[in-house]
Amino acid sequence: MTPPLFDTVAEVRRRVDLERRRDRKIALVPTMGALHAGHGALIDRARREPDCVVVSIFVNPIQFDRRTDYEAYTINLEEDLEFCGARGADLVFAPSTEEMYPRPPGTFVEVTGLSEHLCGRFRPGHFRAVATVVAKLFHIVAPDRAYFGEKDAQQLAIIQKMVADLTFPVEIIPVPTVREADGLALSSRNRRLNPEERRAAPALYRALRAASDCIARRSALAAEAKQAALQVLAQEPRIRVEYLEVVDPGSLAPVERIEGPVRIAAAAWLGETRLIDNVPCP
Amino acid sequence: MTPPLFDTVAEVRRRVDLERRRDRKIALVPTMGALHAGHGALIDRARREPDCVVVSIFVNPIQFDRRTDYEAYTINLEEDLEFCGARGADLVFAPSTEEMYPRPPGTFVEVTGLSEHLCGRFRPGHFRAVATVVAKLFHIVAPDRAYFGEKDAQQLAIIQKMVADLTFPVEIIPVPTVREADGLALSSRNRRLNPEERRAAPALYRALRAASDCIARRSALAAEAKQAALQVLAQEPRIRVEYLEVVDPGSLAPVERIEGPVRIAAAAWLGETRLIDNVPCP
Repeated sequence: MTPPLFDTVAEVRRRVDLERRRDRKIALVPTMGALHAGHGALIDRARREPDCVVVSIFVNPIQFDRRTDYEAYTINLEEDLEFCGARGADLVFAPSTEEMYPRPPGTFVEVTGLSEHLCGRFRPGHFRAVATVVAKLFHIVAPDRAYFGEKDAQQLAIIQKMVADLTFPVEIIPVPTVREADGLALSSRNRRLNPEERRAAPALYRALRAASDCIARRSALAAEAKQAALQVLAQEPRIRVEYLEVVDPGSLAPVERIEGPVRIAAAAWLGETRLIDNVPCP
Repeated sequence: MTPPLFDTVAEVRRRVDLERRRDRKIALVPTMGALHAGHGALIDRARREPDCVVVSIFVNPIQFDRRTDYEAYTINLEEDLEFCGARGADLVFAPSTEEMYPRPPGTFVEVTGLSEHLCGRFRPGHFRAVATVVAKLFHIVAPDRAYFGEKDAQQLAIIQKMVADLTFPVEIIPVPTVREADGLALSSRNRRLNPEERRAAPALYRALRAASDCIARRSALAAEAKQAALQVLAQEPRIRVEYLEVVDPGSLAPVERIEGPVRIAAAAWLGETRLIDNVPCP
């Protein structure tokens, strides 16, 4: 059974208000559709609470730095609805671009300090657009809890900072990355890989693990850990590394000497497809 | 009788939630304290609805461009509480700076397009800080309606745009400017004027009226209207004009030819005190 679908702000608000009057908490799983088992894990985690679980499906045009990437981001709403139903979501909010942006976007949420590193360096304006659309979704659905995947570690950290700084009444719950058997982190973009690229892709995770293992063997130098990772990637000429960094898990700033927990994060290109991944260490 | 005072986010949220469960709407009157009849008009307007009327009192340090201005902004909480009680406010939220900013502010709400003109040109970062603190107050109190004075026309326009762009579930209700018998717009800053400055101050409103009259007499040129205003101000050497503009009431951008409703807005200095005022036309 597919869950009820709402495509306007007014309608989804009315429905969510009704649930709240029945003393149900509201859970939000924000997605851009093209749902896979990674999103499934977010819904499953939300489902563990007795909350009304709302899945939002909205491909936010302003967060794409390349028009081709936005256009390649096709979703099949019918398939996504079925997916949400099978996972037990209570309702789906899938607004049009016009409903979310009835006029050109003119107000933006800027999260400073975390947006400059990692992906932020290569995707100017991306996280500002992500923070802005998540703020809008929070204002529309007014969730008590919202679920974000650790695969997008920088996005997660930015949303957590936004919520704390702007005193949003929302609890952010991180959900661990879901991987294929060969280690590749699930992503809607994986389906754009051709068979050869798909075979090469798991090297990204192997590289992150090599860096993590290097640190676990008591190397205190980020440069050595990065070297270990780059050696793995050197064996896959199809992979072009955009960045690979050992960062502080709080500030996401690169560290040189490793003196506590860190996160190892990377972005890499396979043909026209950009993949990201990260692992905590330890 | 003074209304109950809350100084923490958790406590005011608990109380407001309770009111909401009793099916009361929540009204917010955001202030920086030092309450006067202008704030009284905001509370009176809110009181016309059967809502739970919350007055917030918080002098937002990040919106002051000059430290001396912030330090001069002293408030007497006891007097303000009594004022709120006399006007029939239901409760007061007066957090400390540490409660509002437990860590250095790192996330900001940027309203583009409206913030560059008028005061924005002379107070860089001011409206970003205003939008940010108002967003925080909206997240804390979760009002159904919020009341803002037309005296701060640019602030009002920016908050209205922020609410529309970020889909805040809040209705913004503008309240007309309250004036002294001699025309001076009420402002907490008026009490900083010495007797001579206070006598000179109403010339600002007279100047705005002169511009408005000039347009009413069918002058279609902003330059002529401004000339009429500046002639009035020239008779008060104590007043130093910062800006005086005829602007589009929607975008707040200066207009040259007047072809529809406009707003005439000015900022001026009297000694160390900066005053602003504006009038609609027609």
